[in-house]
Amino acid sequence: MKGCPYGTHRVIEPKGLLPQPAWRINNDMEIYDNEILIDVISLNIDSASFTQIKEQARNEGRTVESIVSETVERRGKQHNPVTGSGGMLIGTIKEIGALLKGKIDLMEGDKVATLVSLSLTPLKINKIKNIREDSDQIDIEGQAILFESGIYAKLPKDMDEKLALAVLDVAGAPAQTARLVNPEDTVVVIGAGGKSGILCLYEAKKKAGAKGKVIAIEYSKEGCDRIIKSQLADIVIQGDATNPIAILESILEVNAQNLADITINCVNIQNTEMATILATKDRGKVYFFSMATSFTAAALGAEGVGKDIDMLIGNGYAKDHSEIALGILRESKTIRDMFEEIYV
Amino acid sequence: MKGCPYGTHRVIEPKGLLPQPAWRINNDMEIYDNEILIDVISLNIDSASFTQIKEQARNEGRTVESIVSETVERRGKQHNPVTGSGGMLIGTIKEIGALLKGKIDLMEGDKVATLVSLSLTPLKINKIKNIREDSDQIDIEGQAILFESGIYAKLPKDMDEKLALAVLDVAGAPAQTARLVNPEDTVVVIGAGGKSGILCLYEAKKKAGAKGKVIAIEYSKEGCDRIIKSQLADIVIQGDATNPIAILESILEVNAQNLADITINCVNIQNTEMATILATKDRGKVYFFSMATSFTAAALGAEGVGKDIDMLIGNGYAKDHSEIALGILRESKTIRDMFEEIYV
Ligand SMILES: NC(=O)c1ccc[n+]([C@@H]2O[C@H](COP(=O)([O-])OP(=O)(O)OC[C@H]3O[C@@H](n4cnc5c(N)ncnc54)[C@H](OP(=O)(O)O)[C@@H]3O)[C@@H](O)[C@H]2O)c1
Ligand SMILES: NC(=O)c1ccc[n+]([C@@H]2O[C@H](COP(=O)([O-])OP(=O)(O)OC[C@H]3O[C@@H](n4cnc5c(N)ncnc54)[C@H](OP(=O)(O)O)[C@@H]3O)[C@@H](O)[C@H]2O)c1
Repeated sequence: MKGCPYGTHRVIEPKGLLPQPAWRINNDMEIYDNEILIDVISLNIDSASFTQIKEQARNEGRTVESIVSETVERRGKQHNPVTGSGGMLIGTIKEIGALLKGKIDLMEGDKVATLVSLSLTPLKINKIKNIREDSDQIDIEGQAILFESGIYAKLPKDMDEKLALAVLDVAGAPAQTARLVNPEDTVVVIGAGGKSGILCLYEAKKKAGAKGKVIAIEYSKEGCDRIIKSQLADIVIQGDATNPIAILESILEVNAQNLADITINCVNIQNTEMATILATKDRGKVYFFSMATSFTAAALGAEGVGKDIDMLIGNGYAKDHSEIALGILRESKTIRDMFEEIYV
Repeated sequence: MKGCPYGTHRVIEPKGLLPQPAWRINNDMEIYDNEILIDVISLNIDSASFTQIKEQARNEGRTVESIVSETVERRGKQHNPVTGSGGMLIGTIKEIGALLKGKIDLMEGDKVATLVSLSLTPLKINKIKNIREDSDQIDIEGQAILFESGIYAKLPKDMDEKLALAVLDVAGAPAQTARLVNPEDTVVVIGAGGKSGILCLYEAKKKAGAKGKVIAIEYSKEGCDRIIKSQLADIVIQGDATNPIAILESILEVNAQNLADITINCVNIQNTEMATILATKDRGKVYFFSMATSFTAAALGAEGVGKDIDMLIGNGYAKDHSEIALGILRESKTIRDMFEEIYV
C-alpha cells in the first residue's frame, strides 16, 4: 500500500493536517510501501524541549523518562506539547518499503540520522536505556518510520555516532548563517556557547571576514570561557538574554554604539525575542533558530519599538546543511575537541 | 519623572521584560514625562484575536464585551492570552509629557492612530459603547498611553476614521509585500479576500507586473467574488488553507505545475503553515503576516518536507508603512469602495 509522501495517511487527529502540526499520529510499525522502518539507537531531544522536560520533571516530582514515554504514547511521536518542538534520531535501517527499494541510496543495515523533526516522526519506544542529560540524548530500544519525503543522512564513518547526532540536530543553523552573513558584517550570536551557537560563530567569522566583527553573548561563565579559549568570537559578553535593555547596552558599549547587521538567536529558553530585536540595527536581519521563539512576541515586539528588520524563522532545513555542519568538525579541531568532550 | 523609552517602567510581571511579552503592565493613567495620554475613540482588535474571542464567547456562553473587559482588567492591556496578539487604536491626544512637548509633531487635540500593538499599550476601559463584529472594531470610553518609542500616525483628513483605523491595522502587510515581490514573480496570497489580503494583492500585482502572476486563495464564495470583480488577482482559487494537500494540488493545476516564488499568508485562523510552505518553490520566500502562525509549526514543518525556503515573521512595522497603506486607498477606487462598504 502506498501512503502519502508527506505522511498524511498516518494522521489520526485532526484529520487533514500533516503529521507535524497533527496532535496524534499512528505509530503502528507495519510500514507502507513508501516508508522506511528504522531501529532506533538514540534520540536527540531538541534543547528547548529537553530544558522544558527537565523543569517539568523537577516541578512535578517526576522523571524525564516518564514524561517522554507519556508524550510518545499519547501522540505517537516525541512532540513536546509545551514547546511544540521535537529533535531527531539515529538508527539502523531495518526495512525499506517495496516502492522505495533500489530507488534510494539506502540499504537495510545502513546507519542513518533522520533530518526531519521527531515532532512528525512515528515512534514507538519499547525501553528507555539511558538518558544523557548533559547532551540531551536518550538511548532507547524502539522503532521509527521515515516518510517518502523525509530527509536523512548516512552517519559519517570518521566520527563517533553521538557526535554526529549532536551536530546534525542543529545542522540548519550554520548553513543559514553562512548564507545570511556578508563580508564586514557585525554579527551578534545569542546563546553562543551552546551547540548551535558555536557552529554559528564559526560560520559567522568565516563569512564576515577580517573586517567583520563577531560578538558572542552567553549566559554562563564556563560557556564564555569556552568561547574565549577557542577564539571563535571577537568579543564575548556574559549576559542574560531575557534582559533586553542590559543586552542592548552592553552591545552598544563594546561596539562603539553600533548595533548588529545580523543577530542569530540560539538560546534554549523563552523570552529572548526583545534582546534579539534590540541588538539589531534598522534594516538588519534576525535569524531565530531557537525553538522557544514566540511568533507574536517577535512580530509585535519589533513593531512595538519601531524596528524595521527582517526576521527569519529558523527553518531546520537548508540545502547541504548536513555536509556544512559535519564539515565544521572536520575543519576545526578546536570545535571537534570541544564537542567530543561534551557529547561523546 | 522620566520612564524608559520602551516602557519597561510599567511592567508589573515578570519584571525585566518589555511591555509586549510581559504578562501584566501598569495601566494607571497618570503619565510619565516621556509618555503621551490618549482619549480612546475605537479599538481595532487584531483579526486572529477577534476570531478567537468570538469563538470563546460562543463556547462559554459569554459576551465579547466581558472577555475584552476581563483581559484589560487582568493584564492592563488588550493582549489576547490565547493568540498572543493585540490590534491598535485611534483616539485624541489628551496630554503630552513635559519632556516630549514641542519636540514631536503632535499637539493636544490631534487625532491619531497608534501603530504599536495593543498587546503592549497601557489601556483603561471605562465603558464599551459599541462592538462592530463585522469590522473587528470596538468603540469605547477610555484612555491609553503611548511610550516614547511608540510610533503613531495622524489620522488623514481625506477619509473616514474607521476606514483609516481598519487599514492602518494591517499597514505592515502591503509595505512588506512591495519589498518582497520582484517583477515576473508568481505570488500566492492566502486569505486573499480579507483586509490585509486585498492590500497585498494590490501591491503584489503592481510589483510582479504584467509578466508576473498573482494567485489569490480565499475561503468564502463572497470573498472570491469580491476579488474576481475587483480584478486584483490573475487567478482566484476557493479553498481551505487548513488542507495543505488540496491547496498544493490546486495551485499546481492552475499554474502549469509550478509553485510560487513568494507566498503571503493573511489568514486569521490556525494551522495554515503547511499549505503556505507547500505552495512555495525551493528557495522561494514565505511571508507570514497571520498572527495565528505557530513558529515551531513553520520551522519544523518546512524541515519535515525538506523545503529550503526563507520564512519571514510578519513584522508589523516597515518604514513608511502607513503612507503605503493609505496610499492604496487613494490610488484604487475599487479597494476604497470595497473597504468603505465593510468598515464605515
Ligand atoms: N530551528 C531548528 O530546526 C532547530 C533544530 C534544533 C534545535 N533548535 C533550537 O535551537 C536552540 C539551541 O539549541 P542547541 O542545541 O544549540 O542548545 P544548547 O546547546 O542547549 O545551547 C543553548 C544556549 O543558550 C544559552 N542560554 C540559556 N539561557 C540563556 C540566557 N538567559 N541568556 C543567554 N544565553 C542563554 C545557554 O547557555 P548556558 O549553557 O550557559 O545556560 C546555551 O549556551 C534551542 O532552542 C533548540 O530548540 C532549533
Ligand atoms: N503581523 C502584524 O503585525 C499583523 C497586524 C494586524 C493583523 N495581523 C494578522 O493578519 C491576519 C489577517 O488580518 P486581516 O485583518 O486581514 O483579517 P481578515 O480581514 O479577517 O481576513 C482573514 C482572511 O482569511 C481568510 N480565511 C479564514 N479561514 C480560511 C481558510 N481556512 N482558508 C483560507 N482562507 C481563510 C478569511 O476568509 P473568510 O472571510 O472567507 O473566512 C479572510 O479572507 C490575521 O491573522 C491578523 O491577526 C498581523
